[in-house]
Amino acid sequence: MTKWVYNFNANESEGKADMRNLLGGKGANLAEMASMGLPVPAGFTISTEVCTAYYENGEKYPKDLEEQVNNSIRKIEEIMGAGFGNVSNPLLVSVRSGARVSMPGMMDTVLNLGLNDDTIKGLITKSGDERFAWDSYRRFIQMYGDVVMGVDYHSFEDVIDSYKRREDLKNDTEIDAAGWKDIVSEFKQIVRDEAGKDFPTEPKEQLWGAISAVFGSWNIPRAVTYRKIHDIPDDWGTAVNVQAMVFGNMGEDCATGVAFTRDPSTGENYFYGEYLVNAQGEDVVAGIRTPQSLTIKGREMESSDLPSMEEVMPEVFSQLNDVRLKLEKHYKDMQDIEFTVQQSKLYMLQTRTGKRTAAAALKIAVDMVEEGLITKEEAINRIDPMALDQLLHPRLDPNAKRDVIGKGLPASPGAASGKLVFSADKAEAMAKDGKKVILARIETSPEDIHGMHAAEGIITTRGGMTSHAAVVARGMGCPCVAGAGSLSIDYKAGTISNGTITLKEGDIVTIDGSTGEIMKGEVDSLQPELSGDFELLMSWADEIRRMKVRTNAETPNDAATAIKFGAEGIGLCRTEHMFFDASRIQKVREMIIGTGNRDEVLSYLLNKQRGDFSSLFKIMAGLPVTVRLLDPPLHEFLPHSQDDIKNFAKEAGVEIDEVKKRLSELAESNPMLGHRGCRLGITFPDIYAMQVRAVIEAALEVKMETGEAVVPEIMIPLVSNVKELSILKKLVDEEAEKVFAEKDNMVEYMVGTMIELPRAALTADEIAKEAEFFSFGTNDLTQTCLGMSRDDAGNFLPEYVEKSIYEKDPFVSIDVKGVGQLVDIAVNKGRNARVDIKLGICGEHGGDPASITFCENVGLDYVSCSPYRVPIARLAAAQSAIRQNF
Amino acid sequence: MTKWVYNFNANESEGKADMRNLLGGKGANLAEMASMGLPVPAGFTISTEVCTAYYENGEKYPKDLEEQVNNSIRKIEEIMGAGFGNVSNPLLVSVRSGARVSMPGMMDTVLNLGLNDDTIKGLITKSGDERFAWDSYRRFIQMYGDVVMGVDYHSFEDVIDSYKRREDLKNDTEIDAAGWKDIVSEFKQIVRDEAGKDFPTEPKEQLWGAISAVFGSWNIPRAVTYRKIHDIPDDWGTAVNVQAMVFGNMGEDCATGVAFTRDPSTGENYFYGEYLVNAQGEDVVAGIRTPQSLTIKGREMESSDLPSMEEVMPEVFSQLNDVRLKLEKHYKDMQDIEFTVQQSKLYMLQTRTGKRTAAAALKIAVDMVEEGLITKEEAINRIDPMALDQLLHPRLDPNAKRDVIGKGLPASPGAASGKLVFSADKAEAMAKDGKKVILARIETSPEDIHGMHAAEGIITTRGGMTSHAAVVARGMGCPCVAGAGSLSIDYKAGTISNGTITLKEGDIVTIDGSTGEIMKGEVDSLQPELSGDFELLMSWADEIRRMKVRTNAETPNDAATAIKFGAEGIGLCRTEHMFFDASRIQKVREMIIGTGNRDEVLSYLLNKQRGDFSSLFKIMAGLPVTVRLLDPPLHEFLPHSQDDIKNFAKEAGVEIDEVKKRLSELAESNPMLGHRGCRLGITFPDIYAMQVRAVIEAALEVKMETGEAVVPEIMIPLVSNVKELSILKKLVDEEAEKVFAEKDNMVEYMVGTMIELPRAALTADEIAKEAEFFSFGTNDLTQTCLGMSRDDAGNFLPEYVEKSIYEKDPFVSIDVKGVGQLVDIAVNKGRNARVDIKLGICGEHGGDPASITFCENVGLDYVSCSPYRVPIARLAAAQSAIRQNF
Repeated sequence: MTKWVYNFNANESEGKADMRNLLGGKGANLAEMASMGLPVPAGFTISTEVCTAYYENGEKYPKDLEEQVNNSIRKIEEIMGAGFGNVSNPLLVSVRSGARVSMPGMMDTVLNLGLNDDTIKGLITKSGDERFAWDSYRRFIQMYGDVVMGVDYHSFEDVIDSYKRREDLKNDTEIDAAGWKDIVSEFKQIVRDEAGKDFPTEPKEQLWGAISAVFGSWNIPRAVTYRKIHDIPDDWGTAVNVQAMVFGNMGEDCATGVAFTRDPSTGENYFYGEYLVNAQGEDVVAGIRTPQSLTIKGREMESSDLPSMEEVMPEVFSQLNDVRLKLEKHYKDMQDIEFTVQQSKLYMLQTRTGKRTAAAALKIAVDMVEEGLITKEEAINRIDPMALDQLLHPRLDPNAKRDVIGKGLPASPGAASGKLVFSADKAEAMAKDGKKVILARIETSPEDIHGMHAAEGIITTRGGMTSHAAVVARGMGCPCVAGAGSLSIDYKAGTISNGTITLKEGDIVTIDGSTGEIMKGEVDSLQPELSGDFELLMSWADEIRRMKVRTNAETPNDAATAIKFGAEGIGLCRTEHMFFDASRIQKVREMIIGTGNRDEVLSYLLNKQRGDFSSLFKIMAGLPVTVRLLDPPLHEFLPHSQDDIKNFAKEAGVEIDEVKKRLSELAESNPMLGHRGCRLGITFPDIYAMQVRAVIEAALEVKMETGEAVVPEIMIPLVSNVKELSILKKLVDEEAEKVFAEKDNMVEYMVGTMIELPRAALTADEIAKEAEFFSFGTNDLTQTCLGMSRDDAGNFLPEYVEKSIYEKDPFVSIDVKGVGQLVDIAVNKGRNARVDIKLGICGEHGGDPASITFCENVGLDYVSCSPYRVPIARLAAAQSAIRQNF
Repeated sequence: MTKWVYNFNANESEGKADMRNLLGGKGANLAEMASMGLPVPAGFTISTEVCTAYYENGEKYPKDLEEQVNNSIRKIEEIMGAGFGNVSNPLLVSVRSGARVSMPGMMDTVLNLGLNDDTIKGLITKSGDERFAWDSYRRFIQMYGDVVMGVDYHSFEDVIDSYKRREDLKNDTEIDAAGWKDIVSEFKQIVRDEAGKDFPTEPKEQLWGAISAVFGSWNIPRAVTYRKIHDIPDDWGTAVNVQAMVFGNMGEDCATGVAFTRDPSTGENYFYGEYLVNAQGEDVVAGIRTPQSLTIKGREMESSDLPSMEEVMPEVFSQLNDVRLKLEKHYKDMQDIEFTVQQSKLYMLQTRTGKRTAAAALKIAVDMVEEGLITKEEAINRIDPMALDQLLHPRLDPNAKRDVIGKGLPASPGAASGKLVFSADKAEAMAKDGKKVILARIETSPEDIHGMHAAEGIITTRGGMTSHAAVVARGMGCPCVAGAGSLSIDYKAGTISNGTITLKEGDIVTIDGSTGEIMKGEVDSLQPELSGDFELLMSWADEIRRMKVRTNAETPNDAATAIKFGAEGIGLCRTEHMFFDASRIQKVREMIIGTGNRDEVLSYLLNKQRGDFSSLFKIMAGLPVTVRLLDPPLHEFLPHSQDDIKNFAKEAGVEIDEVKKRLSELAESNPMLGHRGCRLGITFPDIYAMQVRAVIEAALEVKMETGEAVVPEIMIPLVSNVKELSILKKLVDEEAEKVFAEKDNMVEYMVGTMIELPRAALTADEIAKEAEFFSFGTNDLTQTCLGMSRDDAGNFLPEYVEKSIYEKDPFVSIDVKGVGQLVDIAVNKGRNARVDIKLGICGEHGGDPASITFCENVGLDYVSCSPYRVPIARLAAAQSAIRQNF
């Protein structure tokens, strides 16, 4: 008999924290807390295997599940001394989902399950609070009706609103027992009307309905979307947690709250959290009432008038603080906890690893190493490399003028400017058009996720630091100002206003997620300064990683940024970028079109490129610099619009028709596979010779001037056949020799190639005989290996990722099975043919952590990425090295 | 000490026929003939290794070469009883090139070497013919001046012409000894003027000059071009043959001739050749004098008035005929021989395997099997599969009206029509523009090769059956009418005329290379009927080959042709070709543009395609038919010109702007790598479902009607990932099941995929779990593996082939190292995953003999090619099987 159900309570705990695959995160941690002796309401977890079996089996349950659930219910009944459906002493339970990883807001929850027109009597007796009991009943119907029976949540809210209007009441708290009782009966009518059947009265029937709703919610579109964004396989499934209810809303000696064991925003080591007196848990998270701080320190930091839990319930707070310390010591990580206080008794409802900002993650990891809780390796593994992005991006210039129109909570740090939009769809659409947008919502919900992803920053006018918007934005590293209550949003009018100033859709705003300020217009920003924690952690990463990290850069500005971020050389300098400069492009065009004097143009470009290389080489003092010779199809340089063509012809002094004729000769059906890369070098050797001369002359110049010569690595692109490389290597060597002879001086240099075509990878043994280094150009290698043009994939690739044909966009994260196989073949053949061949990657995958892991696994010597990705790559390389050594 | 020089003479023969790599074809065969006891003038061969060493060593000779040459010269002197440079009894020699394979007309020859102002006296004495001696001397200066010293040949001809004008003579034969003597002295002046130095007088100096000229001629552009066209590696090198002179021009008892041991045009077993009395060998080959037939039969066949050798010199002819029989028995193949008769004594100057038409090759091979000379396997190996092409192409309809304007020799069989051109360059240029051209020349020379390759047919007005034009045209399988003396060509005016009718460049002519007729305008042609020899040889090939041969066909016409040529099924039916039909394309466009009612269009296309498949399936009764589902980018179906767009919009009843908008949405940067192939099936499953239904319904229809059901092999194109195939295979199976259920009947079918992307090949193990067959789409596989668009490669691929980066155009002959490696990987992974997986090739390589050999070597089950290539593929498959078993 398969064990489908795992109990946890004060007496036994059948699960453990490391059983999260089976029990989900929530269930595993409830079990763990129970076994640690923490006060957890009795309950049980239906394992994720049931979810998988359920879907594999045409949405049917394993046949022995019901019996196991019944046994576990009986255990809860025994411990709680109450009975499921017992009229005098009813057991109420909560039913919650719990997947392997936390999926905030994605899954549906049902509380107070077990209530009906009979058991309500027992609850009234037991609690001695009729109003509480009816309120609980209406909440149950409302949640269950919504989640299980598909009744619109707003229908229920409308009933409450019209009741309040009728009775001239302002707040829900003013509704008395009789009022809630009336509402319950109206709710049941709504269920009957909208769901077409009666609200179930039998607790077991209620329970199975809720369980099915949890499993059902695994496959609703928003959950599927979330999993896709976060790379969660569909077959992990969710568990279901059934747990005895405890009530934070049974009176003024009750409360409910969520907390983080350290500040999730800064990482500071103090108890950070919010609570509400006389409330149920959902009230805090939903952001409907503004919660109060847990601690005096927190209250002071937020300049709040509302008293903290530390002040209001000092004794329970002290217990809670003990739990906090115990949990951190036990889990060795910052925890995100939920608790309820029922009649002054503390219950722990959840603990899980807390989401945090990148800055917080950094600080917590470094602090915990210093506190002796974790090792340096563990600290390194704690940081999501991609999250570093938010530390590296600009913050607002403190001296810049700020036209502040409102303020909210500093929910996710960083600054952002963009056009205001008021819906997720609009945000996504405008971002697709290349516009930067700030998404402003009254509050956000999981339906908004795609818009939040598309936005540069997020504003909400309602909700706290743990509201949906805040949690999600921090997770994404997206600046967010939450609960900016002084502003009001009018969706219909498409405006946000503070009463005086009204901004409309498309107006530019700036937000500072670190202060909570919202400003009109764009505010100047500054390059980020990196904290000591960052430098420290990076220094640990540098100690541990094996692979070098270089950057892709052509401009002195990019090169300097990259050096600041720790780049150890240039892995890809795209020389053609130097041709696009306004002052040069006319010359280049004349050369290609054949109107200019070719020698004159080449000598002009030689001077320019020598200067460019010289600046780069000075910045990269002593480091390797890989210079790729001309790569793109020539027609990329050419004028395309009628105006451009006219201007070009005029300046060059040729007929427009002549230009057009040449343009059409140069046009290609598939330029990606056309006359480009080393094919240009073979057919126009003079251009390559000019570029080589510029590189070598610049290197000599810098050597003479600074004494710190770079080692230029001259890279021949798009090689498919060793003979191309042989011919062009000869050209490089001959040109270099000429320069050496002229200058009576020399520098070291290397000649190598991009491996960016399948044939190059497959014949890497031959190519390595000529090439001193390989640089994997995984962008083109992906295009050719998969036969997929990145520019054209938009018509089908989203559907491909949605259908899991490719789990991830193969242009973002390397396709290990296909492209990776080619890289692996090339690495092995290359090393066999030339044992000391230098191997690196310069495609955009070089800045993607998963791809970096692949690079470590196949044993590349370095990765190269854009300047802002350099720290990400350093960290990811260290993590990969740790994994490799493990 | 390396042996560089090999002697041959009546006493010894250091070489053999199988040493052609070392001695070249000519040298090896001279040695072989010497060892057979045939009358060969004494001589020696400088090996091809000297040529290679010469070029490897900066055009310097090995240091011991001179001594070896001197020794060999001494041997000739001894045998001939004459001395090199001896005034009273001078030894004269010929110097000829001789590469491993025959390269007609490519290499330069020097005769009569050893003559100078002193030795001429000895020659006069020895021959007793002063005129002959001076004529020989002037010929020597002329050839040597041209070939070795780079003096324009025409400068010499001009001297002779002006001499004749001066003396009022018509023919060279009228010039007497004194005349030639004057001319000799003028020739020497010309050399002095044009070469800037004196004509060398010292025989040894002359000899080394000639040897160097032979080696030098190995690398002149026309030789390089010839090697490229004929796939001859540059490092084979040429040998040099130095041989005592014999003279066919010493009087009326002298003659020279060339012959084939069987008719090289038809293959008929009779002695076929031409000779000239009192002439040197070059006179025959150059086509300047019209030669006489060797035999009475030959004379009669050509209706010639000139007496045959058989009649004029019966005794020598009889010796020659004996030699012919001996050679055929010895070499077991038809020989092409050169001979000279000096004062009634026969000398053999050359024997080599004779070039022949495809028809002759076929007949000779089949006859020799029947004569017991060779085996069936040898017969099969004797036929160049590509040469079959000429047997398979149309001949003129005998009932069609022929407006004959002239007649020449039937020099190379087959019929062709095209626009008249008068230069090789023009022929090439017009052919590049897709025009069919007939190249007409007074006579052709090696400089015309590129134009001859480009032309559909060749006309010359001068020269015989063994003239340059005739030999080359037969080798290329290109129809040729040679020596059409009734026509005259005016290069300047760009006309050809028979006196009455004058045609100009661009006018259409038709030639019949089998009758020698030249016709004005285009004449209807007929499908070829294949001879019994063809059928017999093919039946031997079919017995021997392992691989099946299928065809690529969509139309009933193509399918029927292929069946006639022996196709064993269809390997590629490109369903989209069925969409281009004028009556259908509007509907297809409406569907894609989204203006039409999609369901209506699909049901319209379903009916059409069902009909198409049904016709094909009936023709292919019982054979497998691979149907590829929609493959090309959708925009290929769309209107592109303004007119087309306007017409489409009008007929569809939509706005032009709407159509243009949709067109620009569908445009792609790199359509080859874009939204096509199975990506269309994933995103538009309804189109694929329609196609599957059409296939299955048609198969059922044919099964019901004829009882002979084909086995449709439904092929999913452009798969890069097994999941694409899984999804689409499910779609195919579901649709087929639906049809089976509706019709209450079923047919067998298979589902498989094209392997045409590197990733598909690399993950063939996964893909084979879903695919019942693989068909290698080597066109696209070449494009993606090499990153080379076939449509765009024109800008660099010719230079690539010229520089030997790729030895052959990889779109014509499979790139074994790269693309072949992927095929090999896929074959192995595919077979490991599914032991009985069916493997074939359907790219254009399927009709290329070298690629077919590759397919045999990796063990494919079949090749598929265009209908006309089917016999070629059958033969090539047999040859590959023989090679594989050897």
